[in-house]
Amino acid sequence: MTKTFTDIIPAQSLFGRLRANAPDAWQSYVCHDFIKQLGDGSLPEAAFKHYLIQDYLFLIQFARAYALATYKAEDLRAMRQFSGTVHAILDMEMSLHLEFCKGWGLSEADIIAQPEARACVTYTRYVLDRGMQGDVVDLQVALMPCMVGYAEIANRLMASSDTRLAGNPYRAWIEMYASTEFQDVAKAEIDLLEHTAKNRGGDARIKSLTETFATASRLEADFWQMGLDLAK
Amino acid sequence: MTKTFTDIIPAQSLFGRLRANAPDAWQSYVCHDFIKQLGDGSLPEAAFKHYLIQDYLFLIQFARAYALATYKAEDLRAMRQFSGTVHAILDMEMSLHLEFCKGWGLSEADIIAQPEARACVTYTRYVLDRGMQGDVVDLQVALMPCMVGYAEIANRLMASSDTRLAGNPYRAWIEMYASTEFQDVAKAEIDLLEHTAKNRGGDARIKSLTETFATASRLEADFWQMGLDLAK
Amino acid sequence: MTKTFTDIIPAQSLFGRLRANAPDAWQSYVCHDFIKQLGDGSLPEAAFKHYLIQDYLFLIQFARAYALATYKAEDLRAMRQFSGTVHAILDMEMSLHLEFCKGWGLSEADIIAQPEARACVTYTRYVLDRGMQGDVVDLQVALMPCMVGYAEIANRLMASSDTRLAGNPYRAWIEMYASTEFQDVAKAEIDLLEHTAKNRGGDARIKSLTETFATASRLEADFWQMGLDLAK
Amino acid sequence: MTKTFTDIIPAQSLFGRLRANAPDAWQSYVCHDFIKQLGDGSLPEAAFKHYLIQDYLFLIQFARAYALATYKAEDLRAMRQFSGTVHAILDMEMSLHLEFCKGWGLSEADIIAQPEARACVTYTRYVLDRGMQGDVVDLQVALMPCMVGYAEIANRLMASSDTRLAGNPYRAWIEMYASTEFQDVAKAEIDLLEHTAKNRGGDARIKSLTETFATASRLEADFWQMGLDLAK
Repeated sequence: MTKTFTDIIPAQSLFGRLRANAPDAWQSYVCHDFIKQLGDGSLPEAAFKHYLIQDYLFLIQFARAYALATYKAEDLRAMRQFSGTVHAILDMEMSLHLEFCKGWGLSEADIIAQPEARACVTYTRYVLDRGMQGDVVDLQVALMPCMVGYAEIANRLMASSDTRLAGNPYRAWIEMYASTEFQDVAKAEIDLLEHTAKNRGGDARIKSLTETFATASRLEADFWQMGLDLAK
Repeated sequence: MTKTFTDIIPAQSLFGRLRANAPDAWQSYVCHDFIKQLGDGSLPEAAFKHYLIQDYLFLIQFARAYALATYKAEDLRAMRQFSGTVHAILDMEMSLHLEFCKGWGLSEADIIAQPEARACVTYTRYVLDRGMQGDVVDLQVALMPCMVGYAEIANRLMASSDTRLAGNPYRAWIEMYASTEFQDVAKAEIDLLEHTAKNRGGDARIKSLTETFATASRLEADFWQMGLDLAK
Repeated sequence: MTKTFTDIIPAQSLFGRLRANAPDAWQSYVCHDFIKQLGDGSLPEAAFKHYLIQDYLFLIQFARAYALATYKAEDLRAMRQFSGTVHAILDMEMSLHLEFCKGWGLSEADIIAQPEARACVTYTRYVLDRGMQGDVVDLQVALMPCMVGYAEIANRLMASSDTRLAGNPYRAWIEMYASTEFQDVAKAEIDLLEHTAKNRGGDARIKSLTETFATASRLEADFWQMGLDLAK
Repeated sequence: MTKTFTDIIPAQSLFGRLRANAPDAWQSYVCHDFIKQLGDGSLPEAAFKHYLIQDYLFLIQFARAYALATYKAEDLRAMRQFSGTVHAILDMEMSLHLEFCKGWGLSEADIIAQPEARACVTYTRYVLDRGMQGDVVDLQVALMPCMVGYAEIANRLMASSDTRLAGNPYRAWIEMYASTEFQDVAKAEIDLLEHTAKNRGGDARIKSLTETFATASRLEADFWQMGLDLAK
């Protein structure tokens, strides 16, 4: 039997506790209508395309955030993992994303011509500022909804009886984030947070970290909503 | 005859050129419906109250932005002017704002209990990140819509035949920003930008600075729109 | 009987523990030869003048560090106290310092013409980077040796039988930092660290904070040594 | 005939002009006694080992500086080149450096046990703060002495009649930095500065950039001097 994402997250890990502390914000993100519609294939194509375009613009700021984490990290293990993520985003994911977009009829020129939507500006600049104001742990927590959230979303979709893979135009997207490779990336994020938080008083900061986590989760939910709204 | 704000801004100043380069974004902000309704007194009270609450939460981030400018400034004149603004916000404006809110039936507890609205998060974090990514001039340009925009808005309202001061519940607001004291503060902002930009290649950066100015102006327009939307 | 500085510091406060954890680094700073010679009046005038010049250049970076703390602070109490320090440095201390320098035959032009000495660059840029890399608590800890160290130094000198106040050319300096006003400023710094650290897992970070504190103390000791070396 | 480094640098490039504007600072670095002794093989082994140890600790901060540049860069070309450097430092150069150190009898444990020397702290934290205070161009200029300086140093040594390669214990070091691979890396740094400066008013900022370049060059010269001093 396939393990669910929840089975994978140790309840006592810092991430496990943040997730448990902010159930409404987290649910609003990982169980968003956009995701439900994506799972059963009913999501309007226009909504998905808007999301794809903004997700490309998001990747640029996401790379900046991991570069900031590399600058802020306080040991080589953390520096190397963050730097690897920056490298992966800039030199692999961005071109894969463009390739994927091409399959949906979106050229690079189409994408770059678009301005960042508000929801993209809001989440990314919130993360960047929170990370600069605080330390590397604040930055990581603000980033957790992104990769770890996508892993949980894909995992939930694979486990849900509402999901329809056959003939679902979004099947490739779901399977990409449900893949072992991506689930391992999310796992590594959780592990690294555990590592950095240990040296920076993470447990004693749970209240403030929960606020950051909840805000970031809500701003990620807005990102899904943006896809639905732009398609109206 | 009263001089309009436009008379005061030297067309060849950096601010004058930014303003001329981004007419649509600037107009969307300084001529927003919220402002028109404020000028003729037709603005719903709920819209104004939502704005007042968010404006208090805005001041906290605004103080952080001027503190960042103090850190980034490269000479004592600039450091002193920015630091003076931080001090004024934290030790004067915030309590004046609370006093003003009290007149509208909003207690400090009411205000602090509210979460920051998206439009507040978006504009402030955009400014803070733009300023951290770039230099002090990028930061100042991202901040220009705020104080200078308010000065122009009040100045325009005073000059407009659509404005009704007698019996207007928002008269105190208009007159505060139209006051010589506030207009001088805005003038000092424009002068300081001229000063710092001179040493940092400002003229040669006009294209990039215009983009920042236009984005910041649009995000400020969103702040007005938020007031209208929350009141619906 | 006059209380010594040690009486004032609660042993269980975060500062008290940092101080106890890094005794060698702290002693190398607060009991430096420069200080001993200053206390008995034997310090060469040239050494003191070199120190005075660099201390002025130091104040500029010190103001930047407190501006950074204002940007990083996570509540209004901390923001206001840090901002008050920036304001005090830029608008009071710097002119008092120039006034004091004039009494030693140093004009503002003399001072500004000097480049920052290495010891000044090293300590200030270490503090600024440590604070930017970490959070407000890391920044405060890196700054502790400065104001709190001066308070302890002056307090120790007043209590020491080796100190000679009568006819000591440096008497005004000693009495300034031994004054109730300055001792209260140092006390407020200690209290604020206690406050901010509580919300940011301070106790659990004692190992890393001790390293920062020890490094900062050693770099402050270098600042004294610079005075002696430049006078050779 | 081998081209000298000077042949390669376009005199009208921004780097060419910075180099021409700060001849004393630049000479003090690229023609330092440490380098002369390295070239003729007379450098005490202890001096070289001290340098090697500190150079490893330097690499950690150097990676942070390039991560900061990635965060600050304003287009994908610059982000990718900076990120590539971070990746190269953390995942290749650091282990090559340890390998090289092993040849000189220095284990990783020997190296990590050492505290950062003052000269290392001073240069790296100056660069990091200058880059954070200013923009990506200020950061790049503060970093120029490093890679580009090493390329010029190796190039000069290869061209100098005082250099003795046969039997020189430091021959591998000289040849590594004189290699086409490394010279190309330096060339790419110069080109990238040209690119980023064009969009950020570089030419109009030449006075301030020259100050940064001169200071950084002098702090790099201190790094060589540290090698000589620690070996005394």
